Amino acid sequence: MTTLASSDPVSPELRSAYDAQKLVPLWESGTTGFSQGGEQPRHWPWEAIGPILRETAHITVPSIVERRVLMMMNPTIPRNDAESCAGLVSAGVQALMPGEIARPHRHAMHALRFVLEGEGAETIVEGKACAMEPGDLVVTPGWAWHEHHNKGGKPTLWVDILDLAIHRAMRTDMFQPGRVNALRAVPADRAYGAAGIVPVGIEENEVARAGHTMMFRYPAGPAQAAAANAPQDQCGIRLARYVDPRNGGAIVPTIDCYLMQLEEAETAKARSLGAQLCVVVAGAGESDIDGTRIAWRRHDVFTIPRGATVVHRICEGPAQIFVASDIEIYRRLGQADGNDPALFAAV
Amino acid sequence: MTTLASSDPVSPELRSAYDAQKLVPLWESGTTGFSQGGEQPRHWPWEAIGPILRETAHITVPSIVERRVLMMMNPTIPRNDAESCAGLVSAGVQALMPGEIARPHRHAMHALRFVLEGEGAETIVEGKACAMEPGDLVVTPGWAWHEHHNKGGKPTLWVDILDLAIHRAMRTDMFQPGRVNALRAVPADRAYGAAGIVPVGIEENEVARAGHTMMFRYPAGPAQAAAANAPQDQCGIRLARYVDPRNGGAIVPTIDCYLMQLEEAETAKARSLGAQLCVVVAGAGESDIDGTRIAWRRHDVFTIPRGATVVHRICEGPAQIFVASDIEIYRRLGQADGNDPALFAAV
Amino acid sequence: MTTLASSDPVSPELRSAYDAQKLVPLWESGTTGFSQGGEQPRHWPWEAIGPILRETAHITVPSIVERRVLMMMNPTIPRNDAESCAGLVSAGVQALMPGEIARPHRHAMHALRFVLEGEGAETIVEGKACAMEPGDLVVTPGWAWHEHHNKGGKPTLWVDILDLAIHRAMRTDMFQPGRVNALRAVPADRAYGAAGIVPVGIEENEVARAGHTMMFRYPAGPAQAAAANAPQDQCGIRLARYVDPRNGGAIVPTIDCYLMQLEEAETAKARSLGAQLCVVVAGAGESDIDGTRIAWRRHDVFTIPRGATVVHRICEGPAQIFVASDIEIYRRLGQADGNDPALFAAV
Amino acid sequence: MTTLASSDPVSPELRSAYDAQKLVPLWESGTTGFSQGGEQPRHWPWEAIGPILRETAHITVPSIVERRVLMMMNPTIPRNDAESCAGLVSAGVQALMPGEIARPHRHAMHALRFVLEGEGAETIVEGKACAMEPGDLVVTPGWAWHEHHNKGGKPTLWVDILDLAIHRAMRTDMFQPGRVNALRAVPADRAYGAAGIVPVGIEENEVARAGHTMMFRYPAGPAQAAAANAPQDQCGIRLARYVDPRNGGAIVPTIDCYLMQLEEAETAKARSLGAQLCVVVAGAGESDIDGTRIAWRRHDVFTIPRGATVVHRICEGPAQIFVASDIEIYRRLGQADGNDPALFAAV
Repeated sequence: MTTLASSDPVSPELRSAYDAQKLVPLWESGTTGFSQGGEQPRHWPWEAIGPILRETAHITVPSIVERRVLMMMNPTIPRNDAESCAGLVSAGVQALMPGEIARPHRHAMHALRFVLEGEGAETIVEGKACAMEPGDLVVTPGWAWHEHHNKGGKPTLWVDILDLAIHRAMRTDMFQPGRVNALRAVPADRAYGAAGIVPVGIEENEVARAGHTMMFRYPAGPAQAAAANAPQDQCGIRLARYVDPRNGGAIVPTIDCYLMQLEEAETAKARSLGAQLCVVVAGAGESDIDGTRIAWRRHDVFTIPRGATVVHRICEGPAQIFVASDIEIYRRLGQADGNDPALFAAV
Repeated sequence: MTTLASSDPVSPELRSAYDAQKLVPLWESGTTGFSQGGEQPRHWPWEAIGPILRETAHITVPSIVERRVLMMMNPTIPRNDAESCAGLVSAGVQALMPGEIARPHRHAMHALRFVLEGEGAETIVEGKACAMEPGDLVVTPGWAWHEHHNKGGKPTLWVDILDLAIHRAMRTDMFQPGRVNALRAVPADRAYGAAGIVPVGIEENEVARAGHTMMFRYPAGPAQAAAANAPQDQCGIRLARYVDPRNGGAIVPTIDCYLMQLEEAETAKARSLGAQLCVVVAGAGESDIDGTRIAWRRHDVFTIPRGATVVHRICEGPAQIFVASDIEIYRRLGQADGNDPALFAAV
Repeated sequence: MTTLASSDPVSPELRSAYDAQKLVPLWESGTTGFSQGGEQPRHWPWEAIGPILRETAHITVPSIVERRVLMMMNPTIPRNDAESCAGLVSAGVQALMPGEIARPHRHAMHALRFVLEGEGAETIVEGKACAMEPGDLVVTPGWAWHEHHNKGGKPTLWVDILDLAIHRAMRTDMFQPGRVNALRAVPADRAYGAAGIVPVGIEENEVARAGHTMMFRYPAGPAQAAAANAPQDQCGIRLARYVDPRNGGAIVPTIDCYLMQLEEAETAKARSLGAQLCVVVAGAGESDIDGTRIAWRRHDVFTIPRGATVVHRICEGPAQIFVASDIEIYRRLGQADGNDPALFAAV
Repeated sequence: MTTLASSDPVSPELRSAYDAQKLVPLWESGTTGFSQGGEQPRHWPWEAIGPILRETAHITVPSIVERRVLMMMNPTIPRNDAESCAGLVSAGVQALMPGEIARPHRHAMHALRFVLEGEGAETIVEGKACAMEPGDLVVTPGWAWHEHHNKGGKPTLWVDILDLAIHRAMRTDMFQPGRVNALRAVPADRAYGAAGIVPVGIEENEVARAGHTMMFRYPAGPAQAAAANAPQDQCGIRLARYVDPRNGGAIVPTIDCYLMQLEEAETAKARSLGAQLCVVVAGAGESDIDGTRIAWRRHDVFTIPRGATVVHRICEGPAQIFVASDIEIYRRLGQADGNDPALFAAV
C-alpha cells in the first residue's frame, strides 16, 4: 500500500520535473523562525584564557608564530561556520612574543586589534607604524596590507576582532599573503592630533575608497578620557564612539566600536540593539543578560546577543568596557530603528 | 607509537584547554578563498518551467494554494542554504488561479513580484490594493502585511524575488502568519502619478521607517518607456532604475531593480558589479557570461554571477530585461566601488 | 566749545587712524533687528494684472518682445534691490505672443516658469523642447541655455520665478546672451514617465553637476493628481512636492516648489517656515496672513512672508495653489528646524 | 516737442498701471554683471592695526568695553552694507583687558574667535568655559549664549569672524542681549580629546539642532600639528580643516575654517574657490593675488577674493596661516564644483 505516496499531491512525474529544473516547492519548506534565537551570552574569563594564551605563546613553530590566534567561538550561535563570538562579530586572542614578526598579508575582512598587555609592539598598516600600547585600538581595514612586529621586551597580547561572518555571507572572504608591494603615504598620527581637526587631501586609493577610517590607530588615553566625559544616558551609561574623523561614522562599515564607562551601581534595564563583544578595560562588576549573570573583571571577554535585555552592575569602578558591535550592518541594511549611533534602547 | 601526536606542537593538555574554553586555533584553519567562486550562470527557460508551473497550478490542496511557489535554486552557489538563485537573491515562480487567495502574512524579508501573465489579480499591501498586470513590479516590503487575490478569469503568473540569504546571515528571517491587524492609510497610486512629484507627509510607521519605498506598485508602461528613453551607456545598454521616489535610492536596502533595454546587435564586454537575476520581458537574444552561452527569449529567467564578464546579443529587439541585483548590499557594506547606481563596469 | 567732541571717547587722531585703515568701530553700530520684519503679504489680482500684461503684450518693439516680463515687486521688503516678491523669491508675469521667440540666453539664476494660459508654446532647455501647457512647471536651471517659442495660435502667459536675491547676495548674478553653443542630449520626458523610475547614466555636465533636477518639465496633470491624493496634514492641507527624481530633494537648491490642495472650509492656523509665492491654480478663497486678509481666485498671485501665521479658507473648492518658497535656502544654511520638506509648522 | 516721450513704447497710461500694481518692466533693467567683480584683496598689517587696537583698548567707557571691536571693512566689496572683509565673511579685531568682561548676549550669526595674544581669558559658551590661548579657535554658534572674561594679567587680542552678510541677505541677523537664562550641560573638552573619538548622546537642544559643531574650542597645538602633518597637495600646500567631529563637515554652515602650512619656496598658481580671510599665525612671506602683491608676517590679516588666482611665497618658514572662507555657502547652494572640502583649484 502506498498511503504516504498517494497522500503526496505532487505526482512522481511532476516531482521529477521539479528536480530536473532545480525547482524547490516552497510549501514544503518551514516558514517561521528559520534561524532565530539560540545565541546565548558567553564569558571568557581572563583568568582562564590568559594562561592558555601564554602557554600557546611558548610554541615557536613558525606557522603558529605567524597566526597565533585563538578564536573565541560561541557554540550557541546557529550555523556558526564563521566561528563567530557575538552575532556577526568574530574575535580571538593573539600573542606576539618579543622579537616575533607576523608576516605581511591582507584580506577583505576588516580586522581590529584591541590591546590588552605589552609594550613596544606595532602593527604596520599600509606602511604606517601603529604603536600597540595597552588600551589602543588599531584598525587594519579591508585590503590594507599589514604586519605585526614586537620590538619590545614583553609579550604583547590583544583581542582580534573581525567581520568574518558577513564576508562569508557575501562570499567576499578573501585573503592574500605576500610581500607588501604597494606601500602608500598615510598621514602620521599627528595629522589627527585633535578631535575636530582633519587633514585634507588624503589620497583616495583602493583602500580609502571602501568607506572606512584612514586613521589607523586610536590611542587609549583620549578614548578613556572621552568616555569619562561623555554625557550619561538615561540608563546611566557614558559612551564614546570610535569614528572615521572624515564623516563621523563607524570606523568600518561592518563593526561599530565604543568605549563605555559605568559609574552607577546599577544601570537601568536596556535592550541591546546589536550583538556586543565586550572587553573589560578597567573595573569589575556583573551583568544580567537575558537572565544569565556574568561576573567580569579586567581583561575578561563577554558577549551580549542582539536583542538581549541587559543590566550592568559595578562593584569596582568606574568600569570601562570596550564594545565592538555588529549593529552597523543592521543599520545599513535597514534592520535597525534608524541610523543613530545608539547601542541600547530603553525598555 | 605516536608519530602524529608528537608532530603536533600543541600538547594534548593544551588542546583540552582549548576545547574546554571553546578556543579554536586559527593557524589550523585554511586562509584563502574560503567560499570564493563556484557560482555559475543558470537558465530556466520558460518553455521548460512554464508547463511545470501550470501543472502545479492545478493542484488545489489548500496548503499549496497558499504558497504555490517553485523556488529556482542555483546548485552552483556554495553553501546555498537560502536556496538562492543569483548571489544573495532568491527567486521563484508563483501561480495564482482565478478565485484563489493567498492568505495574509508578513515577514522580515523584502519580497518583490514581477508579473509575467494574467489579469485581474492584485496584492493587498498594508491595506492598499496593487494591481498585478503583466510587467508590473509590486513591492511588499519587510514587515508589511500582504496577501494576493486573483479576481480575474485567468491564472496570474509571476516571479517572486526575495532577499532571503542576507536575512539568514543576519538571522532576521522571521515570518508571521495571521490576520492583517494594522492596516494603515497608504497613499493611492495617483499620489505618485509622475516622476518628480511626491506626496508630503506620509505617515512614518514601522514599515516606513525601515528605509524602503512606500510606493508599492511600479506599473509596466512607464518603466518600459523610461528604459526605452534612457541614455545609452558606453556598453550600449539603456537602464531605468526603480527607486524610492522620496530619495532616489534603491526600492529596498537589499535588492536593486532595473529595467534594461538592449538595441545594439552586441553590447561591449562588461563586468557585472553584482549578481543579476534576469527576467526577459520582450525580445530574444543570447548572452555570453564568463564563457557560458545562454539563449533567451520572453519570460525566460537567467542569472549572472557577481563579477562575471558579460556580452549580450539580441536577435529580436529591442529586448527588455528586468534585473534584480544584490549589488545594493555590497554598496552599503563598503564592498562595491562607490555608491553609484551602476550595474556594470566596462572591462 | 567742543561739547560734542569732548564727549567722544575716541580722540580725533585715533578716529583718523580708524579711517585710514578702514576700521569701523562696532560699538557705534546698532545691534538689534538690523533688517528684521517689514515684509508684508501682497496681492496681485489677476483681474488687475492680466489686462496690463495683455496690453503690454501688444507692444512689439523687439527688445521688449525678448524680455516681456513685468516683475512683481514687493515694496515692503527692506533693501529690496533684487525686486523680490516674497522673501528671497523674485517673480514676474510674462507673455509670449503667437510666433514670437525670446532668444537664447542663460544665467546663473535658476528660473522656473509656471504656466497660466496658452497652447503650443515651448521652452527649449539645453536643446530639449519642453511644452508649456497650463499648469505645467518648466525649469531652466542655472547656466542652462534656454529660449522660448510660441508656435501656437494664442498668447501664452506664465509666472516667472527666480532666485535673484540670493545670487545678488553671493554676487553670482551673472547673465550670458548669445547663441546656444553647447546643446546636450537630455533625456526625453518619457524617460521620467513614472514616479519611482529614473533613467541611469545621464551625462554629468556642467549643468547637471550643480545639484538641480535634470527633468526640465513637470506636467500639470500628474502634479494635480498627486496633490489631490497626498495625505492631509494636521492643518488640513494636502501637499505634493516637485523634486529631483534622482534624490528626492528640491528641484533647485534655492527654491522649493509645491502644489497645495485645500478642501477644508478652514485650515488650522499654521506658521509659514519660509516665504511663499502663491499662484492660484483652481478654486477661490481667502487667507488671513498675520492679520491681513486676501481674497483670491484663479491666477491671482499673493505672498506669505517667512514666519507669518496663516489660515486659508475656501469658498470654491477644492482649491489648488502652486507655491514657490525660499525655505530651501534656510534649510541648507542651518536656519530652519531640520531639513524636512515641510512648508508649515503647527502653532 | 516730445521726442523722448514718443520714443517710449510704453504709454503713460500703461506706465501708471505698472506703478500702481508695483510691476517693474524687466526690459528696462540691466542684464549683465549686476554685482560682479570689484572686490580686491586687502591687507591689514599688524604693525599698523596692532597699535590702534592697543590704543583703543585703553578707552574704558563701559559701552566700548563690552564691544571693543574694530571691524576690518573692505571698501572694494560692492554694496558692502555688512561691512564684510572678504566676500561674505566679516571680521574685526577685538581686545579684552585684564579684569574686563564682555557681557552675555547671543545672536543668529555664528561668531568665531581666533586668538592672537594673551593668556587667562576665556569665552563662556552655553555655560562652558573655553580658554582663549594664542592660536586657539573658539566657536560661539548661532543663538548660543556667550560672554568673554579676561581673568589673566595681560590684554587678550583676537580676530572676530562672523557670517553677517548672508544673515543680512536672509534677514536673520538678530541679536539678543541679556542674562544667560538657559545654560545647558555641554561636554567638557576632554570628551573630544582625540580625533576619531566622539561622545554619544549630546543633548540635541535648539543650539545643537542648527547643524554646527558642539565642540566649542579647537586648541592651537593639535591644529598646528595636523597642518604640519597633512599631505601636501599638488600646489604644495598642506591643509588641516576644522570640522564638526560628529559628521566631518564644516564647523558652521556658513564659514569653513582651515589651517594652512606653507613650506615650499613658492606654491603653484591656484584659483581660490571662495573668499579667504587669512590670519598669519607663523612665518612670513608674500602672496600674489590677481596681480596684487601682499607681503605678510605674523598676525597680519589679508584677504583673497573668490575666484582670484593666488601664488604664495615664503621667506621665513614654515608659515602657518589660519583661513576662514565663505566657500561653504556656495557649496550648499549649488554654486561650487561639488561639495569636497577643497579651498583651491589648480589652474
